[in-house]
Amino acid sequence: MMTTRITELLGIQYPIIQGGMIWCSGWKLASAVSEAGGLGLIGSGSMYPDVLEEHIVQCKAATNKPFGVNLPLLYPQIADHIDIILRHQVPIVFTSAGNPKTYASIFREHGVKVVHVVSSTKFALKAQEAGCSAVVAEGFEAGGHNGREETTTMCLIPAVSRALDIPVIAAGGIYDGRSMAAAFALGAEGVQMGSRFIATPEASAHEAFKEAVLRAGEGDTLLTLKELTPVRLLRNPFFSAVMEAYASGADKDTLAELLGRGRAKKGMFLGDLAEGELEVGQISAMMDKIQPAGEIVHEVMEEFVRICERLGKISH
Amino acid sequence: MMTTRITELLGIQYPIIQGGMIWCSGWKLASAVSEAGGLGLIGSGSMYPDVLEEHIVQCKAATNKPFGVNLPLLYPQIADHIDIILRHQVPIVFTSAGNPKTYASIFREHGVKVVHVVSSTKFALKAQEAGCSAVVAEGFEAGGHNGREETTTMCLIPAVSRALDIPVIAAGGIYDGRSMAAAFALGAEGVQMGSRFIATPEASAHEAFKEAVLRAGEGDTLLTLKELTPVRLLRNPFFSAVMEAYASGADKDTLAELLGRGRAKKGMFLGDLAEGELEVGQISAMMDKIQPAGEIVHEVMEEFVRICERLGKISH
Repeated sequence: MMTTRITELLGIQYPIIQGGMIWCSGWKLASAVSEAGGLGLIGSGSMYPDVLEEHIVQCKAATNKPFGVNLPLLYPQIADHIDIILRHQVPIVFTSAGNPKTYASIFREHGVKVVHVVSSTKFALKAQEAGCSAVVAEGFEAGGHNGREETTTMCLIPAVSRALDIPVIAAGGIYDGRSMAAAFALGAEGVQMGSRFIATPEASAHEAFKEAVLRAGEGDTLLTLKELTPVRLLRNPFFSAVMEAYASGADKDTLAELLGRGRAKKGMFLGDLAEGELEVGQISAMMDKIQPAGEIVHEVMEEFVRICERLGKISH
Repeated sequence: MMTTRITELLGIQYPIIQGGMIWCSGWKLASAVSEAGGLGLIGSGSMYPDVLEEHIVQCKAATNKPFGVNLPLLYPQIADHIDIILRHQVPIVFTSAGNPKTYASIFREHGVKVVHVVSSTKFALKAQEAGCSAVVAEGFEAGGHNGREETTTMCLIPAVSRALDIPVIAAGGIYDGRSMAAAFALGAEGVQMGSRFIATPEASAHEAFKEAVLRAGEGDTLLTLKELTPVRLLRNPFFSAVMEAYASGADKDTLAELLGRGRAKKGMFLGDLAEGELEVGQISAMMDKIQPAGEIVHEVMEEFVRICERLGKISH
């Protein structure tokens, strides 16, 4: 047990949240993390409404502990998703990719706690004004879609913590007890880990993608496609094609055409490592094994406590 | 007093190092930081040999405590710089921008301690093999010249600390006791701060540049000119001209011509905020006042100890 404003808000034992990732985080992963005392999130951005409903039902059957749904606000069938979340009384929603203003009040009216994912202090303040209960402040090193200002976790967390009254969850580069302790030193009261939870048996990612994440070394991911939506990708033949397009002066339309549709599914869910879009964070370079999600939660917490104790002795 | 392998190696009281910055860190800044118990560095990259010699002489007159020289290894008159450093028995050299192999052995033969600045684990291992006594691992958020892999401090410090036997100094995004504690959580045994020390009366930067650094907000710096040497710059009219050049498909030669020569001096030393190249880190967004360098050292140390004590109590 460990108490911060985040554990109290979400009703969890440990301030460790599993990032709600498209194609990777269904009910198996979310329920495993929640069962271990953290907060599991179902990544609804890659699910049709009926699929999301099935995952919520299964998640409830697998754990009595709180879990949540990650809801990208640009999702085309968002009204259906919201309806399902409310109908099944999911207690927590993490919103991302959009303005939480309209949606935060709908959820709040129904007693659902809303946490919004931001990449800048400006958007963090907007989330607070919109009535969100907390924010996830996600740095440049994080996998997948990311902010245009490229502010890193080290610079973002102190800025957001200083500006907000509501508590801050740090994301981007967090994967163990050391980085969790660093996030707490910077002012966070919880952490969200995405990449680390891809390398679990419970993640719904394709095995080939999981293996690619483990093989990733330093410098193997880069933020790209900034003219569309900035996204951190693992280098692969598709990534090389994007680089070639840039080198030959491709404009926004050409890039959008090259990206096409369905590439994230192709890479992360279907395991096409050549043609797929492989979203993962810089910290994949530190990962070297597949490990049960619950074991990760406990290992990170134990190391976090050890690091904090070590730091506590520095001044004596 | 606080003991780490870095304080022992460098013979300093506090593991706080002032980054050796072109146009900003002459003898006044270096001696002030050293007098306060940290390590001051003269930034020789913007000095002719006779200027460097004068700064070393003045620094020795101003403090009896250890100080060092930052030596970019691509400096055209490097043999003269090395000769002066050895003749005046400067005890510590921080090398950067190049391979330390040849130079590290020259310095070691003369009893000078060598610390090399790196942006990746690969180069950190090379520095260790070359006989360096420590490395500065500098993340993507740092100001000025930077690595191509864009690894952030949060991801770089654990990777370098894990790979090396010699101690690691963290740089990039470090500016207060919180970020210093975060760096220590990640495995660093010392920190190097650059941007923060620009905002001091002792820095030789132009007052207009110091004021621009204080005005900088979140997202006001970006890593650019990656085709030449990646450099983090403050947005200004010159930066906009670079962006326009990119938009119109400029090649490497066009960018080099646009950059030209002497822009860093123009901006940082002569205070031409429109046409100059303004090198500063992301953390400039957090800075809001000019403060004596010695006061910064003490303030950061006090906050660092406070944060460590707070973290030490988390687990109880």
